[in-house]
Amino acid sequence: MCRWLAYSGSPLRIEDLLYRPKHSLIDQSLHSKLGAETTNGDGFGVGWYGVGETPGVFRSIEPAWNDRNLRDLSRHIETPLLFAHIRAAIGSVVQQTNCHPFRYGRWLFMHNGFIGEFAKVKRDLVLAVDPTLYQSIEGSSDTEVFFYLALTLGLEDDPPDAVARAVGVIEEVGARHGVESPIQMTVATTDGRQMWAFRYSSEHDSRSLFYSTDVATLRAQHPDNPVLHMVSDESRLVVSEPLGDLEGAWNEVPESSYGVIREGQDELQPFAPRAPG
Amino acid sequence: MCRWLAYSGSPLRIEDLLYRPKHSLIDQSLHSKLGAETTNGDGFGVGWYGVGETPGVFRSIEPAWNDRNLRDLSRHIETPLLFAHIRAAIGSVVQQTNCHPFRYGRWLFMHNGFIGEFAKVKRDLVLAVDPTLYQSIEGSSDTEVFFYLALTLGLEDDPPDAVARAVGVIEEVGARHGVESPIQMTVATTDGRQMWAFRYSSEHDSRSLFYSTDVATLRAQHPDNPVLHMVSDESRLVVSEPLGDLEGAWNEVPESSYGVIREGQDELQPFAPRAPG
Amino acid sequence: MCRWLAYSGSPLRIEDLLYRPKHSLIDQSLHSKLGAETTNGDGFGVGWYGVGETPGVFRSIEPAWNDRNLRDLSRHIETPLLFAHIRAAIGSVVQQTNCHPFRYGRWLFMHNGFIGEFAKVKRDLVLAVDPTLYQSIEGSSDTEVFFYLALTLGLEDDPPDAVARAVGVIEEVGARHGVESPIQMTVATTDGRQMWAFRYSSEHDSRSLFYSTDVATLRAQHPDNPVLHMVSDESRLVVSEPLGDLEGAWNEVPESSYGVIREGQDELQPFAPRAPG
Amino acid sequence: MCRWLAYSGSPLRIEDLLYRPKHSLIDQSLHSKLGAETTNGDGFGVGWYGVGETPGVFRSIEPAWNDRNLRDLSRHIETPLLFAHIRAAIGSVVQQTNCHPFRYGRWLFMHNGFIGEFAKVKRDLVLAVDPTLYQSIEGSSDTEVFFYLALTLGLEDDPPDAVARAVGVIEEVGARHGVESPIQMTVATTDGRQMWAFRYSSEHDSRSLFYSTDVATLRAQHPDNPVLHMVSDESRLVVSEPLGDLEGAWNEVPESSYGVIREGQDELQPFAPRAPG
Repeated sequence: MCRWLAYSGSPLRIEDLLYRPKHSLIDQSLHSKLGAETTNGDGFGVGWYGVGETPGVFRSIEPAWNDRNLRDLSRHIETPLLFAHIRAAIGSVVQQTNCHPFRYGRWLFMHNGFIGEFAKVKRDLVLAVDPTLYQSIEGSSDTEVFFYLALTLGLEDDPPDAVARAVGVIEEVGARHGVESPIQMTVATTDGRQMWAFRYSSEHDSRSLFYSTDVATLRAQHPDNPVLHMVSDESRLVVSEPLGDLEGAWNEVPESSYGVIREGQDELQPFAPRAPG
Repeated sequence: MCRWLAYSGSPLRIEDLLYRPKHSLIDQSLHSKLGAETTNGDGFGVGWYGVGETPGVFRSIEPAWNDRNLRDLSRHIETPLLFAHIRAAIGSVVQQTNCHPFRYGRWLFMHNGFIGEFAKVKRDLVLAVDPTLYQSIEGSSDTEVFFYLALTLGLEDDPPDAVARAVGVIEEVGARHGVESPIQMTVATTDGRQMWAFRYSSEHDSRSLFYSTDVATLRAQHPDNPVLHMVSDESRLVVSEPLGDLEGAWNEVPESSYGVIREGQDELQPFAPRAPG
Repeated sequence: MCRWLAYSGSPLRIEDLLYRPKHSLIDQSLHSKLGAETTNGDGFGVGWYGVGETPGVFRSIEPAWNDRNLRDLSRHIETPLLFAHIRAAIGSVVQQTNCHPFRYGRWLFMHNGFIGEFAKVKRDLVLAVDPTLYQSIEGSSDTEVFFYLALTLGLEDDPPDAVARAVGVIEEVGARHGVESPIQMTVATTDGRQMWAFRYSSEHDSRSLFYSTDVATLRAQHPDNPVLHMVSDESRLVVSEPLGDLEGAWNEVPESSYGVIREGQDELQPFAPRAPG
Repeated sequence: MCRWLAYSGSPLRIEDLLYRPKHSLIDQSLHSKLGAETTNGDGFGVGWYGVGETPGVFRSIEPAWNDRNLRDLSRHIETPLLFAHIRAAIGSVVQQTNCHPFRYGRWLFMHNGFIGEFAKVKRDLVLAVDPTLYQSIEGSSDTEVFFYLALTLGLEDDPPDAVARAVGVIEEVGARHGVESPIQMTVATTDGRQMWAFRYSSEHDSRSLFYSTDVATLRAQHPDNPVLHMVSDESRLVVSEPLGDLEGAWNEVPESSYGVIREGQDELQPFAPRAPG
């Protein structure tokens, strides 16, 4: 479907995260190993925090692997928090407004997976979005509706609860329309200070998701690896697929769970949809 | 806002209609004389009938004046019925799914103007679209919603009535939300056999619209004009702006009226919105 | 690198050639089996004969598999002679002017492969192009230079000789600059009446190339296949990869040879570069 | 033809330079007052210094006024030195590789104007480019050839001399081919530390060019203008058209002259082509 990467930590150039790793996201755009499709060439997006109140977003419908603007911007923008996403469209049109990450105020949101039989359930889901938020929807993708549903249900106040409630609505509407598998998802969201990453699917067979081992541990295991001395202890990656084969570096996010990445203490918790009242 | 052209008659190459005339639509994309904006550079579209059950549609977000594919296709496609549209976006995103003409089955639809304060009224208008049609909406423009509203209200059976009812809904929803001028429009629609062209606005001060004088009359007035001997008596153009200055060639469509172009007998009728039941 | 298809025969809709076959060119854009790369997503082009003096050309930098204009045009254009090409860029920029097929007057030209170490030899090759032709070069690809070299050396008069001489120049210039493998190619060219297809490489290990068995023979072998009754005896395909698995349908073009497809009698001949005088 | 802007001074967000001013470059893309064309919608580019060894460059073929990525990047990138350019193509193709500014190493180069009858003289000018530089030419525009000619003739060592020599070559080659007006130009170039701006044309009737009055003087004249208290004394703009109507803010660069913007002391000098040896 898609592949994504979320980074938080020492300020790095985007290219260090997107192009440098052996099995980088750019490499995954042509040769994904764990994805439902090997090619993710239907547009891409990056979101980052730095200059300005809101995160910057750059999205394009070109394949990531041959986009020269992405290559160039990656060399000239540095950030402590990056979201990057490459898309394999499965229904909705390839257009910038359907590229992830989506942004609302200081928030970013991206998704690998799908809302099952979206054409069938779209109208009901859109109706569940707060009317004042509704008018900010610009594209036609399932993920954007998911994001606005989560915003409607309190994403800015309590992300795990809002996502659980949004998934609850999606499960309920899907069930009502006879959809067998209403949702398949790995999702990441952030306000620029913390990041949340979710792994869940109706059939409990979710897309792959990995988080990086903490840097201090890795540094102890690989004392000679220079990269590990460049980044701070707090630096952390969450990715659809491991970016390389450094032993001990990658841990699978368990099925039906979510993680919080924040300064201080990361956390891993079980995740379940919360049915609408 | 935008400029458009509708042609029905002897099969012509698209370039004869789009590029050849002195003040062609392509010229209008850079130098509109009568439009609300002089530049119409936010994408374009052409729809034509010929090979295949449905009309062909080619849409792009490039300015029409520098699009090489449009130039080339225009030289290599011949058609007896062409819709062409150049866009000056006033709010919704520049993306292919927002470019006119819109197509549904054998039908085409294009629009110059706007639904007033669309962000305010969009949700209510979208809710008035038949749920089975709703899922075919791909873009985010006011015109596409207008088109699906007209389809919901019987466009395929009785176009003038369906457009009158759709405008009635738009006027009513606008009034309910305190919109001063709910609609401004010149609209063309066709099923490939007949064409309908509407001119209307809430404030009865509508965008310009012209239709060509019938060819037999023009030929009598200008016996030496070779072009007039190339096209059949039934050939007819409806345009936002006259394409040249041939005397007697262009007639203004009166305020609040619509025309039908068909084999046999054209017709001009008054137009008024029809308030919802 | 790339994949291409050339068709000549009974007029067909482009979609019948590009989208319908089991392992169609569009399928190959995502999942090439015999190509040097599995993904050919760096733009595409089609050229066809029909309306107008010259062939129509539609080229785009989007991946062929998600381009809606290509999908739509394919359903609404019918042609007795089609060239189609999907690109996997290996150096030169992804831009329309680097997409195949290239056109000059009534001629089309497309190529799978490369001129070895093109950056090294480009200047000398460009200098060998006739100065009056030089100014028509618009892009930066190796193939366009190859095409203009062939035009300089008589393509319009004697295509096999002109291609042999162009390859001779490329081999000679490559050798002079110490390039190990100056050329790798399958090439197709046409003037709209005949088609020529070449398979050659400096190292005599050329990209795959197949031509279809003549229709009468296939019809005798598969009397129940309805498609074979739809197309004329003269219909013929030349392709980088077989489009399906109909037994007996595909024949490999031998290494270092070329074929001529024409009304009457096809021909297969040995091919060798002709060193410059 | 085109319009451009060059800024050097206190670090500013790109949007402060591109979007904020009353008659901003974005406004000029739709409504140029002093340009040869009122619309500059054939692509754009920005180049800036900040993160990384080389300047960042973002170029696109969309019109600047509707490009959402430009809008977004402008809000999230801050720079002490910006080049920005909007294009009105007059011959060469609209493609990213023809968008200004052009970059080579740490150098940027942009141009408003044209090389007269470029198709005629292109081959000879390209031949005058150093063969090792030749292979870096990616597009087909006159300006890129001009830039590589200047690089060949010492731009990195002595910009005014190299530009004078490049213009000398262009004048000489043009004269040899009977071109009446071989060059029309305002040009800006920079290495990230100094900027040079040139105004010249064969017919001594050059495109408009203005530089901003030094900030200390302006501040004395307009003690209440808050913007003037935000930027350092060294801040300076060079532009095709004044960005607003602050009295005393804009000075015309005289015909046939060039300016140097550097820390310390700006300079204005006469400019004349230097004929090739």
